[in-house]
Amino acid sequence: MKEVMSFIRANKVNDTKTALANGGFPAYTCRKVLGRGKKSVDNDLLKAVLGVGELPANEFGESLTETTRLIAKRFFTLIVQDNEVDKVVKIIIEANQTGNPGDGKIFVLPINEAYTIRSGEPTAEAY
Amino acid sequence: MKEVMSFIRANKVNDTKTALANGGFPAYTCRKVLGRGKKSVDNDLLKAVLGVGELPANEFGESLTETTRLIAKRFFTLIVQDNEVDKVVKIIIEANQTGNPGDGKIFVLPINEAYTIRSGEPTAEAY
Amino acid sequence: MKEVMSFIRANKVNDTKTALANGGFPAYTCRKVLGRGKKSVDNDLLKAVLGVGELPANEFGESLTETTRLIAKRFFTLIVQDNEVDKVVKIIIEANQTGNPGDGKIFVLPINEAYTIRSGEPTAEAY
Repeated sequence: MKEVMSFIRANKVNDTKTALANGGFPAYTCRKVLGRGKKSVDNDLLKAVLGVGELPANEFGESLTETTRLIAKRFFTLIVQDNEVDKVVKIIIEANQTGNPGDGKIFVLPINEAYTIRSGEPTAEAY
Repeated sequence: MKEVMSFIRANKVNDTKTALANGGFPAYTCRKVLGRGKKSVDNDLLKAVLGVGELPANEFGESLTETTRLIAKRFFTLIVQDNEVDKVVKIIIEANQTGNPGDGKIFVLPINEAYTIRSGEPTAEAY
Repeated sequence: MKEVMSFIRANKVNDTKTALANGGFPAYTCRKVLGRGKKSVDNDLLKAVLGVGELPANEFGESLTETTRLIAKRFFTLIVQDNEVDKVVKIIIEANQTGNPGDGKIFVLPINEAYTIRSGEPTAEAY
């Protein structure tokens, strides 16, 4: 069993939900997260473009300093069988690929055991 | 060391907290998540039951289309010793088992290393 | 590849963000969580200190019963290369170490695979 976790654009949540449901993966968890990728902004360049000596010391200024700015993203996580990982990864990529930076990342983690609380038994079913 | 993560009903948070604390596991993290299991709804059946040709195109209608509807759940996560996994799983099952669909799932993940920030040292203690 | 996840004080988010960015780790995810460590409070002692027979059965009373009280913390997670784990752990410890209980914990988890959604390809790059 594997956990497939992905960080995607907030406006891609519905597409991803629909694609997963249609692909036979109806069970997942979604949450708001704040994150950022490796893109960063040259503060000196930014000041030159804005024609200012210092960036404004307010929320607007903070939002410009990309080095540490966090962006609202969505975190999707699914638990699937080992042999379903490739299919789920493909579905998530197809639903989220715009070709632009910020499309997101997918990570696959090992799961050692799973239990269904209703039955109280270990389960080979991921959902 | 292992991470025991569980997705449970929102109204079971207090029972779970108390059961874990009483069982000797006082350290955990809880967060709101939106998720769903494999249960889905037949939209045609739903329309027939409601006596409508189309589901209303508003929030109420959306909340009915279970295929992609997300439910507010709670995500509980604990880091425990390998030999404590069975005990923690048992505690969580007992606190959350109603016997109905939606009781939730428990997953166990491997943890490679742990550090206590206060001491700055690797730790064999999970909490 | 590894996931380095840490639970830190809410007021250490900015220090951590800056330290990670300066250390060459610009990509991470941050989220609010509620959690607690192993510290707990003796309710009988608490009642004696407050001079009450019973703790008030309201929100204030609940917030005093530390056994199950949850504290707002921040959850930071990063995906890094195996050989970067030590460096990231060191950065997080340095940014968060006050020497007091509640400084937090760091856990390292294995990642099996990673994909960049933009390219649709597996990636050896963590971000």
